[in-house]
Amino acid sequence: MHVEAIELNPARNVTLTAYLQPTDGEFRRVVRRPAVLVLPGGGYTMCSDREADPVALAYLKAGFQAFVLRYSVGEHAVWPNPLDDYEQAMALIRLQAEIWGVYPDKIAVVGFSAGGHLAGVAATSAHERPNAAVLGYAALGGCGTPANTGAPAVTPAIDDLTPPCFVFASVSDTLVPVQNSIEFIGALANAGISFESHLYAFAPHGFSTAEPALEDSAGMCSRVPRWVDDSVAWLADVFGAFEDGGLGEPRCPRWSTADAAPTLSLDCTIGRVMSVPAARESLRSVPQLARLMEAAPTGAGADAGLAARVSLRTILRYAGVPSDEVERIGRELAEIELGH
Amino acid sequence: MHVEAIELNPARNVTLTAYLQPTDGEFRRVVRRPAVLVLPGGGYTMCSDREADPVALAYLKAGFQAFVLRYSVGEHAVWPNPLDDYEQAMALIRLQAEIWGVYPDKIAVVGFSAGGHLAGVAATSAHERPNAAVLGYAALGGCGTPANTGAPAVTPAIDDLTPPCFVFASVSDTLVPVQNSIEFIGALANAGISFESHLYAFAPHGFSTAEPALEDSAGMCSRVPRWVDDSVAWLADVFGAFEDGGLGEPRCPRWSTADAAPTLSLDCTIGRVMSVPAARESLRSVPQLARLMEAAPTGAGADAGLAARVSLRTILRYAGVPSDEVERIGRELAEIELGH
Amino acid sequence: MHVEAIELNPARNVTLTAYLQPTDGEFRRVVRRPAVLVLPGGGYTMCSDREADPVALAYLKAGFQAFVLRYSVGEHAVWPNPLDDYEQAMALIRLQAEIWGVYPDKIAVVGFSAGGHLAGVAATSAHERPNAAVLGYAALGGCGTPANTGAPAVTPAIDDLTPPCFVFASVSDTLVPVQNSIEFIGALANAGISFESHLYAFAPHGFSTAEPALEDSAGMCSRVPRWVDDSVAWLADVFGAFEDGGLGEPRCPRWSTADAAPTLSLDCTIGRVMSVPAARESLRSVPQLARLMEAAPTGAGADAGLAARVSLRTILRYAGVPSDEVERIGRELAEIELGH
Amino acid sequence: MHVEAIELNPARNVTLTAYLQPTDGEFRRVVRRPAVLVLPGGGYTMCSDREADPVALAYLKAGFQAFVLRYSVGEHAVWPNPLDDYEQAMALIRLQAEIWGVYPDKIAVVGFSAGGHLAGVAATSAHERPNAAVLGYAALGGCGTPANTGAPAVTPAIDDLTPPCFVFASVSDTLVPVQNSIEFIGALANAGISFESHLYAFAPHGFSTAEPALEDSAGMCSRVPRWVDDSVAWLADVFGAFEDGGLGEPRCPRWSTADAAPTLSLDCTIGRVMSVPAARESLRSVPQLARLMEAAPTGAGADAGLAARVSLRTILRYAGVPSDEVERIGRELAEIELGH
Repeated sequence: MHVEAIELNPARNVTLTAYLQPTDGEFRRVVRRPAVLVLPGGGYTMCSDREADPVALAYLKAGFQAFVLRYSVGEHAVWPNPLDDYEQAMALIRLQAEIWGVYPDKIAVVGFSAGGHLAGVAATSAHERPNAAVLGYAALGGCGTPANTGAPAVTPAIDDLTPPCFVFASVSDTLVPVQNSIEFIGALANAGISFESHLYAFAPHGFSTAEPALEDSAGMCSRVPRWVDDSVAWLADVFGAFEDGGLGEPRCPRWSTADAAPTLSLDCTIGRVMSVPAARESLRSVPQLARLMEAAPTGAGADAGLAARVSLRTILRYAGVPSDEVERIGRELAEIELGH
Repeated sequence: MHVEAIELNPARNVTLTAYLQPTDGEFRRVVRRPAVLVLPGGGYTMCSDREADPVALAYLKAGFQAFVLRYSVGEHAVWPNPLDDYEQAMALIRLQAEIWGVYPDKIAVVGFSAGGHLAGVAATSAHERPNAAVLGYAALGGCGTPANTGAPAVTPAIDDLTPPCFVFASVSDTLVPVQNSIEFIGALANAGISFESHLYAFAPHGFSTAEPALEDSAGMCSRVPRWVDDSVAWLADVFGAFEDGGLGEPRCPRWSTADAAPTLSLDCTIGRVMSVPAARESLRSVPQLARLMEAAPTGAGADAGLAARVSLRTILRYAGVPSDEVERIGRELAEIELGH
Repeated sequence: MHVEAIELNPARNVTLTAYLQPTDGEFRRVVRRPAVLVLPGGGYTMCSDREADPVALAYLKAGFQAFVLRYSVGEHAVWPNPLDDYEQAMALIRLQAEIWGVYPDKIAVVGFSAGGHLAGVAATSAHERPNAAVLGYAALGGCGTPANTGAPAVTPAIDDLTPPCFVFASVSDTLVPVQNSIEFIGALANAGISFESHLYAFAPHGFSTAEPALEDSAGMCSRVPRWVDDSVAWLADVFGAFEDGGLGEPRCPRWSTADAAPTLSLDCTIGRVMSVPAARESLRSVPQLARLMEAAPTGAGADAGLAARVSLRTILRYAGVPSDEVERIGRELAEIELGH
Repeated sequence: MHVEAIELNPARNVTLTAYLQPTDGEFRRVVRRPAVLVLPGGGYTMCSDREADPVALAYLKAGFQAFVLRYSVGEHAVWPNPLDDYEQAMALIRLQAEIWGVYPDKIAVVGFSAGGHLAGVAATSAHERPNAAVLGYAALGGCGTPANTGAPAVTPAIDDLTPPCFVFASVSDTLVPVQNSIEFIGALANAGISFESHLYAFAPHGFSTAEPALEDSAGMCSRVPRWVDDSVAWLADVFGAFEDGGLGEPRCPRWSTADAAPTLSLDCTIGRVMSVPAARESLRSVPQLARLMEAAPTGAGADAGLAARVSLRTILRYAGVPSDEVERIGRELAEIELGH
């Protein structure tokens, strides 16, 4: 493994440390590697060592490349300095992707506490969006400390470019209340962004990987350390898992449900499809659906009964529509513009 | 193991099945057993076998007594019939607690989907409250199907008697959207009720224990089956774990934080204590705190800085207040009436 | 779940308790179920409750049917009474397989301590062999207590009909030394029987499932309770896992290596194949192998270099032999009689 | 994390790579760190990258310092060159222990295949013994390849200085048969050395950490990757776990049983104690034991009944011997010289 320490902004003490593992050769399943960009916490007054290398090591072990960004803190934390640091780091990693053996479109940001705030801003507002975000006891409702005047709240900024998120926290956290995480996942759910969330009954703020070297297990519930392996497994679902010849297909959909996606598809529920006038119009041309459409709900406010939740693909198959016709309908639906 | 099938209400086909393990004798660590009351799902039109015995078996394996309630469904589901069934079942278990080897104050309700709705109503509104609730892909926002007219929403009903909850669901659930769970845990957090929550990236509705005998692992993410062991570990945190001579002390606090509890304590933050006028008054008698109090924030709206988040116990220790005096203060605070 | 208590031999207090789960219906993946026959320990003076139902429950949870045999103990333990009890129980389960929803060729015996001795005898010497054996801190070197005169040692009895075994024990066991398990797996390895083994650094004898309700975790290492889930996963490898429509193909081979199997196959090493004269003769007809065979080792005592460990299938593919010719060779090899 | 690459022997291409994490400061539980010295496999013809850094990373994540030794291979592999390399590396680590933040008496060697052979030699024959050994699919029966003439077998060399061992392998391994591991743990058991062992039903040789980046999970059973976390947990049992202020007391005893230890103690069985004439003599002075001793077995060949397996401490307590007298007896026993 090769370590590179890169000064991103000497005037603000911003550094990027790259932990780089080899590809190819004996690592026949590794063409390139997915990566994590770790953003330690520390209330924008410091970058905690506890949430830096120990986190990088967890993902390195799983085969990732890992980067630790020590962003602007203390007097340098004036917004948008930390975000600028992030943009610079992510742009550099993508620029160097080939040399560093990184998939440029499989880079997750992993942030904790204030670093989780920064990771959340990156996921919702940055120019260089991460491809997934792991947010630990993150200050997502905003983190407007004296050190960081002007930092925006994350939750209201969720948009269609926000990548899938993995959100974990302790319910008993007194420093960053768990509501920060709950409101954020609520907004993700409403926006249809895919996510996973683990909120543990009790643990102190700042448990990092919860390894015994870092944190006393007596003070936290036994599930806490699982977030590490769970986030690794989730990233394999989102990015694709290592296979011979490279990463496989992602198992985790980009959107929480097909109905939540920004375009219609055959996997949408019949209720969703029927709520879009242009889609209703398009389906009129399918004779087998005639009777169905008369009975179907006619709008967003319609009865959300079980029938309306069956996917269009299932309905078409059930109605005996030939498969090439089904595919044609799928293509037609995908082109309908939605005012999301 | 002994199985008893009890007809609770023959007219409505309501039955309680009791799976009872022995106590004492060779089971020297088992004076009595904690218990689960399982409420299967099925949209109030049926009680699913998939969410009945397989769930009971998971907790039996962990040393619990287990009960499965087949409550009023179909034409009998008119509200409040299902809730009445629950009340009758829970009252019977507590009445029989000694004979059945159950701790009457360590009984969790475990409900799925519509059964999760019923479990949620039990946790928030029943006369016979459970001591903990495990809620799986539960219809907590309400479940007003034709079969179940008048069933109330669960989330708005959360009160101070609501026990700790373990909430799990799939983010990709199209039948009972994950918002049901998110809004519920948001309300728990605001009410200060302790909880744990696991929301998995993708799985179909109705995965039950997610054992391979029940559900194809190809369709769900690898973390899903963990809810079973995690809920068992969480119940040991809430009820106390098996020890020689009986259950030990619970590790999981009743309230998410000391500040959330309905009475003040030494573990409250100084900010919380100071926001209560009677508590401020009481602390005036402690000379070592004089200087501190001048500097301290004066109300609920005060600066929620780091200092205000330190616990009173820590402050008193730091200020050199003798330990018997500290205990006296604790008792005094506990008696202050709070308009919660 | 249905429980049946069957008196197998009232004069000797021998009973079989059947825990039976439903098949089909809502359990669409369950045509029939694999089963376990549990043999509790107790030094042939008793059948311990700690190693009876709690063990059955672990496998029931995983979708198995479970049977507990309380065999002849105390004054009735005179050999071969306990073995006769086993034969009677296993024969009955197979006779009732259809009614009880059991795959008659997917029944594992699970025995502990003295019950592990009995399970070991069943696996190596019984008429009604189990299809797999799980042996916990088992007295495999023999268990000739006064209560059980004449009971044979298990290890010397291993034969070609012995099924795959899962062997676990504690290294610090002072009652049944771990050598019992080590000598047994050594003999399995030499016989080529597939097995899995977990020997934990420290735990007292008789930990059963090691659930906290049964055993204090303070006295044993953290890995101990894993044998339960590991044995369930191993049985799915040996019997096939639940799939839609029934159990899938086994992943775990019957023999530890192809060389250990009682017939030759394409997966045998070239060294193994060449050590059998009839096989050498058969391969002479393959022109592409001519040069290879001149260089190849000529007998069991030959140099066991890396080359000799390559499989015949690989060699044939490398030599460019067409695939139907490869299959023909495979069939020919399978018919060669080996004096095993 | 700091990486140092040290040339140990340029003429033979021997290098030691040190991965060093900080101590103290924010790592308040970390005074120093336990360490692993990783010995990759490769048949003494190479040092496999697959068994180098990925292994180091697993232990680094758990809070260890990690060292990778690339020892003499190929033409340089002539025995005892590789062992000399090991001795040099281990001596250097112990010399630098303070500077490198390592506990000099808590260093495990972790070896695979041929590197497992070297690790085994280190554990049984080196001057600089490791404090624990993790041996993966190790060639413990000897590894006399052309590249490594004269390398000794490991198993016959086990002695009283051999540290606790963690032994794992695949039962279906065709390159290094599982008998290598079984014979080794059998000899450890006979010598009374504490160990833990996991032999997995099927996996190819050389699976390393079995991370998906390294090995296809389709070819191996699901338990295989667990050796990593299990070995970390076992090392915490052997070395002591991280606690505030340093490592705690080891939970895993040095010897598999008290009877196996090279000195007598109160935890020995009464049978073991009575088999030593000097100990019998010593106990004669305890009046409460008089009657007991008349009944007790008199030698190594005596009946190994249950009574003889009770610990002396239990007997003395039961006989009402005062605790200071018990301690005196313990001290007296510890001084008896045993011809082990």
